[in-house]
Amino acid sequence: MTPFPDRLAEAVRCKGNPLCVGLDPRWDLLPETLRKRHAVESLDAVAAAIEEFCLRVLDLVASRVPVVKPQSAFFEVCGPAGMSALQAVIRRAKELGLIVILDSKRGDIASTAEAYADAALAGVTAGGRRFPVWDADAVTVNPYLGRDAVEPFIASARRAGSGVFVLVRTSNAGAGLFQDRISDGRKLYQHVAAAVAEWNAGGLGSRGLGDVGAVVGATSSSELAELRAAHPGLWFLVPGYGAQGGTAADVAAAFRPDGIGAIINSSRGVTFPFQPTDPAWETAIVKATERSIGELTEAMRAARR
Amino acid sequence: MTPFPDRLAEAVRCKGNPLCVGLDPRWDLLPETLRKRHAVESLDAVAAAIEEFCLRVLDLVASRVPVVKPQSAFFEVCGPAGMSALQAVIRRAKELGLIVILDSKRGDIASTAEAYADAALAGVTAGGRRFPVWDADAVTVNPYLGRDAVEPFIASARRAGSGVFVLVRTSNAGAGLFQDRISDGRKLYQHVAAAVAEWNAGGLGSRGLGDVGAVVGATSSSELAELRAAHPGLWFLVPGYGAQGGTAADVAAAFRPDGIGAIINSSRGVTFPFQPTDPAWETAIVKATERSIGELTEAMRAARR
Repeated sequence: MTPFPDRLAEAVRCKGNPLCVGLDPRWDLLPETLRKRHAVESLDAVAAAIEEFCLRVLDLVASRVPVVKPQSAFFEVCGPAGMSALQAVIRRAKELGLIVILDSKRGDIASTAEAYADAALAGVTAGGRRFPVWDADAVTVNPYLGRDAVEPFIASARRAGSGVFVLVRTSNAGAGLFQDRISDGRKLYQHVAAAVAEWNAGGLGSRGLGDVGAVVGATSSSELAELRAAHPGLWFLVPGYGAQGGTAADVAAAFRPDGIGAIINSSRGVTFPFQPTDPAWETAIVKATERSIGELTEAMRAARR
Repeated sequence: MTPFPDRLAEAVRCKGNPLCVGLDPRWDLLPETLRKRHAVESLDAVAAAIEEFCLRVLDLVASRVPVVKPQSAFFEVCGPAGMSALQAVIRRAKELGLIVILDSKRGDIASTAEAYADAALAGVTAGGRRFPVWDADAVTVNPYLGRDAVEPFIASARRAGSGVFVLVRTSNAGAGLFQDRISDGRKLYQHVAAAVAEWNAGGLGSRGLGDVGAVVGATSSSELAELRAAHPGLWFLVPGYGAQGGTAADVAAAFRPDGIGAIINSSRGVTFPFQPTDPAWETAIVKATERSIGELTEAMRAARR
């Protein structure tokens, strides 16, 4: 199997852009026509509605973008039926040839971390058989618990030919409370990035990019630039572009001089660019996707100069 | 409704001990008699087996201990059916009068954190109706993303009269990689503890203990003692006692001088003190529970001297 970092680079090359479509489905934002078909009698109905919406989004974006990122919280919030919807959405995305990053920001220790990792990536072995669970191509992981919390995810990823993205610098306003604390002359997120780079060195693909990437928010282009320069081997997953305020110019700093190395996520900006009452919501999604692709293609080109 | 910190203190007082039974069900550790009833043809069968095991454990421990802590990873790893099992286990635990801490170590930002929080605690509103999802009494949260990642959990907890436990110092060998980094003269976990204490100050109950507690591993009693002295208003959830190597003497430092303020978790030590082939596994669980209760009651008493 082609290593994850090479699959990701190839997907970006094929589609010609680094846009990752974030699937953060929320009942209150869904098109009204769709909500009406799923009268809310139970969470199962909500789950069915968000599944239908996400499958439609996948159809609309699959030929245009390389990657999608389902946010597990919005499926989990619909209970077990929501988790079935998550499986259906990931299955369809992979059928459509998309790379799937499960954004679940998991983090725990020892056999618990193994359970999360195998659920997300390699699948679970019971009674001598292997069962896929969420079956994503990559998963996001929280580093607070340290090396032995991240390693089971890396091990599971390497068994499955998949990848891990570790939170380094997040895009929220309060991210700095702990991530910016300075010790030994460097901020915490810089120490985390250095550890991620070390873990990543064991899984480099043919372009010098590896299977343990970093989540770095679009909200500070100077931090993006500094981390990009320090760690040329890291794939960056960049949230915060679009609805969260990061611009294409902000994210340009995330690319390497060869124009690859970063995928840029937009969730609400691409999937909810309409009012629930708008009958032309599908057209709005296509237009928003095309607009983001245009901006990001330009940003990639600018990085290459 | 009685505030969470008071409910927790009352449960510890009623049962006379601070033992939290961790539910980390693993297929390969289950009693063979039980596994044979659930031939592994699918993950649904594995989920049914772990549900049956956990429900039996609840029956055995409910009259003896105040708190149980299902570990969401071991349910999630069985897919959607595993999440249904988690719901059934939490429902039964609450019927039995136990306090339930959902150990899912979630952490994300803004509306995503809200979704995780409402799923765990307050329930979800859709179409003007409220639906409970996991419906726990408290949930564990990862602080790496900062204040705006933790606040939605606190808000959801306060709407529901429930609680939050924030990871401060974890019990794994590699915990220090980031948690021990020193800035402004204090380790990162000490800065986190100070932030938790500040959040907790807004939800104090009648004994001066609040609704935002701290997870502090049993593996270093000097750290426990230092955090206990610094933050008398924090409930501590202490993992690492038993199978992970922490002794009752180690955890004694977690209690306040009034003998309350900490619940001590044991997972494998209490729930898997048997070989899968042992037909007397239920007796073994009761004995291990009684033994741990004896040790911890002594530790609580020692703290009071």
